[in-house]
Amino acid sequence: MPHIKQINHVAVVVDDMDKALSFWRDALGMELHELRNVPAEKSQVAFLPLHGSEVELVQPTSADSGIAKYLAKRGPGMHHICLEVDDIEGMISQLTSKGVRLINDTPRAAADGKKYAFIHPESTSGVLVELYQL
Amino acid sequence: MPHIKQINHVAVVVDDMDKALSFWRDALGMELHELRNVPAEKSQVAFLPLHGSEVELVQPTSADSGIAKYLAKRGPGMHHICLEVDDIEGMISQLTSKGVRLINDTPRAAADGKKYAFIHPESTSGVLVELYQL
Repeated sequence: MPHIKQINHVAVVVDDMDKALSFWRDALGMELHELRNVPAEKSQVAFLPLHGSEVELVQPTSADSGIAKYLAKRGPGMHHICLEVDDIEGMISQLTSKGVRLINDTPRAAADGKKYAFIHPESTSGVLVELYQL
Repeated sequence: MPHIKQINHVAVVVDDMDKALSFWRDALGMELHELRNVPAEKSQVAFLPLHGSEVELVQPTSADSGIAKYLAKRGPGMHHICLEVDDIEGMISQLTSKGVRLINDTPRAAADGKKYAFIHPESTSGVLVELYQL
């Protein structure tokens, strides 16, 4: 049986990275591990690790990306929650068999080889859920 | 220095607990630790623990609660993220000194004695952030 292991990260879409970091890093005191440009996602991402999990701040770098459209429509705020799974193909099969609507029916591979897939908010009570296999 | 330790929980507001559990418990396979009525918050809350953290599903039980108004306005979805802190009074002082807007300037105590306070989304890039000291 595929198994959800933990919250891998929570992603927040922001419209001003400096202002966001003034809260998450400077006021809360969280460590900024890395500030990375991710051209494949047309975003700049700040990674703030927390005891095996992470807060990620995501700012679009192009107006034509999905995340830029989300930001334009809904404003800054929570974007998705990512759950680590030990067997992403098995979990996708299990979800499909139970009628869950997936955005990615087959896992995609990130640049570092990690496999991920998104579940449609329609099936999750309105939350965009990412699955991640490390 | 006060210190953020980990993501304590992520709270999702739902309009249909049975439907929400059919995804989070039955399809994803997460353990439902407890389904509890919380009269003080006019809510029913499902607790699904995950390796030291937790997903909480919250359904309002009265139309006049804050969470019911949030649901009516924004629909189901992410409600807040809760960060565990080792010294909540110290953290509130630190945040205040940096101009962060708090919803609770002094911590409140839950029925079980845990201390909590909310930070206004205006200061966090649109995310309702709860601080929790166990």
